[in-house]
Amino acid sequence: MPNNPIRTAAASQRSAVDPFRAMDVLAEANRMRARGEDVISLAVGQPFAPAPPEAIAAARAILDTGRIAYTDALGRLDLRERLARHYREHYGCDVAPERIMVTTGSSAGFNLAFLAAFDPGDRVAIASPGYPAYRNILKALGIEPVEIEVDAASGYVLHAERVRAEHARRPLHGLLVASPANPTGTVTPPEELRRLVEFADEAGLHFISDEIYHNLSYAKGEETALRFSASPIVVNSFSKFYCMTGWRIGWMVLPEALVRPAERIGQSLYISAPELSQVAAMAALDATASLLAVRDGYVANRNFLVEALPRLGFREIAPIDGAFYAYAALPAGFDDSTAFARRVLELCHVAITPGLDFDLRRGQGTVRLSYACDHASLVEAVRRLATVL
Amino acid sequence: MPNNPIRTAAASQRSAVDPFRAMDVLAEANRMRARGEDVISLAVGQPFAPAPPEAIAAARAILDTGRIAYTDALGRLDLRERLARHYREHYGCDVAPERIMVTTGSSAGFNLAFLAAFDPGDRVAIASPGYPAYRNILKALGIEPVEIEVDAASGYVLHAERVRAEHARRPLHGLLVASPANPTGTVTPPEELRRLVEFADEAGLHFISDEIYHNLSYAKGEETALRFSASPIVVNSFSKFYCMTGWRIGWMVLPEALVRPAERIGQSLYISAPELSQVAAMAALDATASLLAVRDGYVANRNFLVEALPRLGFREIAPIDGAFYAYAALPAGFDDSTAFARRVLELCHVAITPGLDFDLRRGQGTVRLSYACDHASLVEAVRRLATVL
Repeated sequence: MPNNPIRTAAASQRSAVDPFRAMDVLAEANRMRARGEDVISLAVGQPFAPAPPEAIAAARAILDTGRIAYTDALGRLDLRERLARHYREHYGCDVAPERIMVTTGSSAGFNLAFLAAFDPGDRVAIASPGYPAYRNILKALGIEPVEIEVDAASGYVLHAERVRAEHARRPLHGLLVASPANPTGTVTPPEELRRLVEFADEAGLHFISDEIYHNLSYAKGEETALRFSASPIVVNSFSKFYCMTGWRIGWMVLPEALVRPAERIGQSLYISAPELSQVAAMAALDATASLLAVRDGYVANRNFLVEALPRLGFREIAPIDGAFYAYAALPAGFDDSTAFARRVLELCHVAITPGLDFDLRRGQGTVRLSYACDHASLVEAVRRLATVL
Repeated sequence: MPNNPIRTAAASQRSAVDPFRAMDVLAEANRMRARGEDVISLAVGQPFAPAPPEAIAAARAILDTGRIAYTDALGRLDLRERLARHYREHYGCDVAPERIMVTTGSSAGFNLAFLAAFDPGDRVAIASPGYPAYRNILKALGIEPVEIEVDAASGYVLHAERVRAEHARRPLHGLLVASPANPTGTVTPPEELRRLVEFADEAGLHFISDEIYHNLSYAKGEETALRFSASPIVVNSFSKFYCMTGWRIGWMVLPEALVRPAERIGQSLYISAPELSQVAAMAALDATASLLAVRDGYVANRNFLVEALPRLGFREIAPIDGAFYAYAALPAGFDDSTAFARRVLELCHVAITPGLDFDLRRGQGTVRLSYACDHASLVEAVRRLATVL
């Protein structure tokens, strides 16, 4: 067709979101491993332990039946009822199973929550540093992430008065708070969480509570936002405490008015979460003993890092009170976290995540290390880092 | 806070997409089954057969290792390489593994393709009747679905001249074609598919080829859009021919320029597809013999329905040349497919999908029956339908 030359259709403008650099580091680490190199990954929040034996056994049992099919878009009723019991037993909160939606990891939870709650142009407050997928998903959906910087002075906690001031400056439509937080490990004190939830209720904002690091607090208490109101959207997952990342399974608790909108969008965008993972996740909720043993490993890792990081020259270490991340300023003499992470991966085969993932303005000076790995790997990683720092 | 009454934050406007009615019917059927009622579901495209034994064995093997983790956002390299081999062996097409992205079902494929290719306000042509998730996802993302009606006169095939005319009327940004098509079973003849692909290339439109019903053509040949150009985005899945719906696993082939945009969005929106499903899917690609036996079952079901549907009074039966759906006009005397489906479910416990899912203008007069069930269930469903029609 010489008269009709082929025109290449371009990528969309909205696809120009930032990469999730931790995933780029993971892909590079996987390429190096495929070449036979001995890489230790502290790049992503990947628990060293497999899913609990109860979950594996439940997965085997459904494999034996061969019946792995589409479920209801909201998820299997037995899992939703079991999660309602979890809220009763673990938090002393009454949550109707009808308000619980099983999701394909918290990733699907955030996407569905954002789509159900916000229209293009809406403004949603998030803390910076914070989990980069918030910012990237919001932007891809035409929603404006309003990043409110937190720092050592405020213990990396997002305070209600900061949000109130931003809302007064220009109205917000939503507020997202993670506690324990990624990457800083900050646990928002329950009284502050209450103030944030109550402000959102007063102002008519959607409050999204990212609780995927619940059960992984080492210092202070943690509380679900549902304790303070029935309005929050709670996003949770089996990836972290339950060690089921690759199973892609999580859940949301929705305010009643958002259940049907989220179900309707979920029907078309996801159909349903993977059924084998739903069945295994239900069993994981009964696996507390083995999971607490895994958590003990994180505590040992945390204590080791608290002592080792300053020795390596890392500075301004964030609270490290929860989750399994250390977030710190680069040692003196380094000022480019992307180059730093690349250099460390090349020189000593330790994968870490540049802080730019979490903080576009200040993150060139910081890195995140995940200590969800096994203790021996962490010790070896620190030994290797010492050789190049 | 008497001075600050709680304001309930409302659902977004964009969440007012249509429900996927088949999923509502499935949820109702599941509720009836939970009450002990004997429901036969012809509502969703759920193959009666379990995943092939090769896939189950591979899933067991990875469960034994316990290593189920995040993978690269683009998917495991071994599966991407195996899929490249599939294109060589099955279609005689060279596709680099670098252009293949493993997705959480075709659902994730469509969402990622739309986000990577289109911005809000863009116009994408689709056939009507068609798979409702296209319309619903496009709308949720602010993209305008441009529905071009097909009918018996054109064999339910979307012809290139119709698309060309629409593009001349008002410019399009994309074109999505499914062959075999849901719900009509239409197979687009290869020469027509070539014309559609070439028109998209000429006009600089993104061409999205939904090939999830490949290997399920009963009458005419089927061809991948990749045969005609390197530009199409091909969406495929292990749900249908490979009998792995509930595993939520599929793949895309992307033009080079869209790989990194789709990867970047996928990193934040999905992180990765479920790893156990990736491993099982790779094994399923070697399971041709058992899957061809399953397909023989669909052929028997199809032949049975072709004879039974007119006897039941259904009219204007669409091509039924591929996939596993019969799409037909209601028997004389009925004019509301939603009421019809509800009545049939109540009276004889057979779940079917109202045509409104697939065609908002004409679908009150049609229904879709899935014949992916086992033959005995289909015979019994037809017997029951005969008692109420």
